[in-house]
Amino acid sequence: MGGDFGPHCIVPASLDCLAETPSLHLALVGQTSVLEELISRYGRVDSARLKIVDADEVVEMDERPTQALRGKPRSSMRVALELVRDGHAQACVSAGNTGALMALARHVLKTLPGIDRPAMATAMPTRKGSCLLLDLGANVDCTAEQLYQFGVMGSVAAQSLGVAQPRVALLNVGIEAIKGNQQVKAAAVLLQQAVDLDYSGFIEGDGLFRGEADVVVCDGFVGNTLLKSTEGLAQLVSSRVEALCRRSLFSRLMGVLALPLLRQLRADMSPAQYNGASFLGLQGIVVKSHGSAGREDFRAAIRRAAEDVRHNLPEQLHSRLERLLATDQSTDGGIDVTTVDGMPSN
Amino acid sequence: MGGDFGPHCIVPASLDCLAETPSLHLALVGQTSVLEELISRYGRVDSARLKIVDADEVVEMDERPTQALRGKPRSSMRVALELVRDGHAQACVSAGNTGALMALARHVLKTLPGIDRPAMATAMPTRKGSCLLLDLGANVDCTAEQLYQFGVMGSVAAQSLGVAQPRVALLNVGIEAIKGNQQVKAAAVLLQQAVDLDYSGFIEGDGLFRGEADVVVCDGFVGNTLLKSTEGLAQLVSSRVEALCRRSLFSRLMGVLALPLLRQLRADMSPAQYNGASFLGLQGIVVKSHGSAGREDFRAAIRRAAEDVRHNLPEQLHSRLERLLATDQSTDGGIDVTTVDGMPSN
Repeated sequence: MGGDFGPHCIVPASLDCLAETPSLHLALVGQTSVLEELISRYGRVDSARLKIVDADEVVEMDERPTQALRGKPRSSMRVALELVRDGHAQACVSAGNTGALMALARHVLKTLPGIDRPAMATAMPTRKGSCLLLDLGANVDCTAEQLYQFGVMGSVAAQSLGVAQPRVALLNVGIEAIKGNQQVKAAAVLLQQAVDLDYSGFIEGDGLFRGEADVVVCDGFVGNTLLKSTEGLAQLVSSRVEALCRRSLFSRLMGVLALPLLRQLRADMSPAQYNGASFLGLQGIVVKSHGSAGREDFRAAIRRAAEDVRHNLPEQLHSRLERLLATDQSTDGGIDVTTVDGMPSN
Repeated sequence: MGGDFGPHCIVPASLDCLAETPSLHLALVGQTSVLEELISRYGRVDSARLKIVDADEVVEMDERPTQALRGKPRSSMRVALELVRDGHAQACVSAGNTGALMALARHVLKTLPGIDRPAMATAMPTRKGSCLLLDLGANVDCTAEQLYQFGVMGSVAAQSLGVAQPRVALLNVGIEAIKGNQQVKAAAVLLQQAVDLDYSGFIEGDGLFRGEADVVVCDGFVGNTLLKSTEGLAQLVSSRVEALCRRSLFSRLMGVLALPLLRQLRADMSPAQYNGASFLGLQGIVVKSHGSAGREDFRAAIRRAAEDVRHNLPEQLHSRLERLLATDQSTDGGIDVTTVDGMPSN
């Protein structure tokens, strides 16, 4: 029921995915009458693979997480998460209120042992392909230990995406050791000491897009800003291209001729390509779709969830985390980070 | 002497600017022999408008700010700032170590009354023109009061750039009041209460590029990430365009035909267009050029400094700050921000 377009986008996207993937089963959780009406409007249904689970309450987009947690036991978000907890579904996909989804997911599914708070991760486009960025906004303030846990989880998630030995980097205002805030410097020490983890040091925003790492770790405030700015800049480029193409008759002609190129470029850079952020660190699979997601974007989020199911991501995370965090337990007391006035390089 | 290319970029850029602006006078501060050799290599000199000021020490790019401050009384950076302090120059432009430049500038020039720490500001491209973003990395951790001061300074600086009534926004992980960390929420309260300041609320990265504000305020860690990511993404777009143009004979032909358009696009999005970050809040004008600045970029930074001189920016800031901060003094004790679990919208 969540997101800017709610079931008007989610229902057709779900039907698309069912048509595209014969092994997929979907449960649509929400107000039955609304969902039934939309299903009948959008198409033929293979009823064996689509069911409706009634949930009459809706978490509003501007609702406080605590309200959603305490006041709405029958919200579509909560019921969907309970389906995962009780084994009736293998993943939950939502375009709703991020804060509420995170709070409910932690409450209903619980975090994996050794993880304080889950992180949101998504693949960002780079020159060499893509890199996993986390956290995207689930945690606006992060301790060094949390950043370290994000690094470990990101490494495991990247491996499940097919990167044999993921290079993990910490986002910072410069690549020199003296740069950054206390949390980042302390997290660097922890990641350096981590066994079985390829820590490649600090990285800056431009290095991320050059593909200098497979996993980039930052707090949720920074990650969210990076994600939204990327979207904003991509939109800006599109509008500039359009404006240029309208400037003169010659430009217009060139624009028309170059249209296939520009269309391809826009598709490559579109957030829809990369839509669907996985919540890492939970005892279950939860994928957050962009609030303003359209039909195509939401399809990408469902595909993301199906991929996480195929790779059995929580189980993989669990077993790797047990080993990694156990090995690193001994170093926890030994961190010594000098206080310096860290400044960025530019 | 600073920056990745040092005087090999700065000397020719300086000669370009002298040729372009007949009223401009420049003092090149650094190792005389190096500078003289480069000046003679790059061109004829109008010696009445160009002088060399000898400074035999150089602040290295990876040096700690404290080292630069205590250990190098004859660094080019320090001598250049002293020229400004002593009235021999009206502005200092440097491509060197940002942290050292900030520490030395605060020490040599001092901050304006009411300002705890200076901020770095630059114009970012938006759909509607540009917006002033600060801080860009001078302060990796910021209190609410500092963010508030940045808002006030940004508003004054935007006015000097020709915006009659600048809309000031706070960068956040969502636009709803419950979103964000404590500093951002408390800064919002302060900015709301500010007299003579058009505070427009929270903004996200995509809103910035849509031109929804004239001034966007954030801490230096976030601002630096946004700036570097923008550069990185612009480079990524360029490389994608090139790759597309090489894909097939047809694409190649289209690419060649569309070349003028793409070149224009690249120029519009180039950081060089926007190079040169003003340090706001000092008793003097200091402009930081990108460390990796080339000849064209450094020219933009010199022009930025000349503009700040023309607008007498520190004096304008001083008089406006006196009024604004005096009026707001009474509200300082009355801030009451509820602690909530702030989460981003996506």
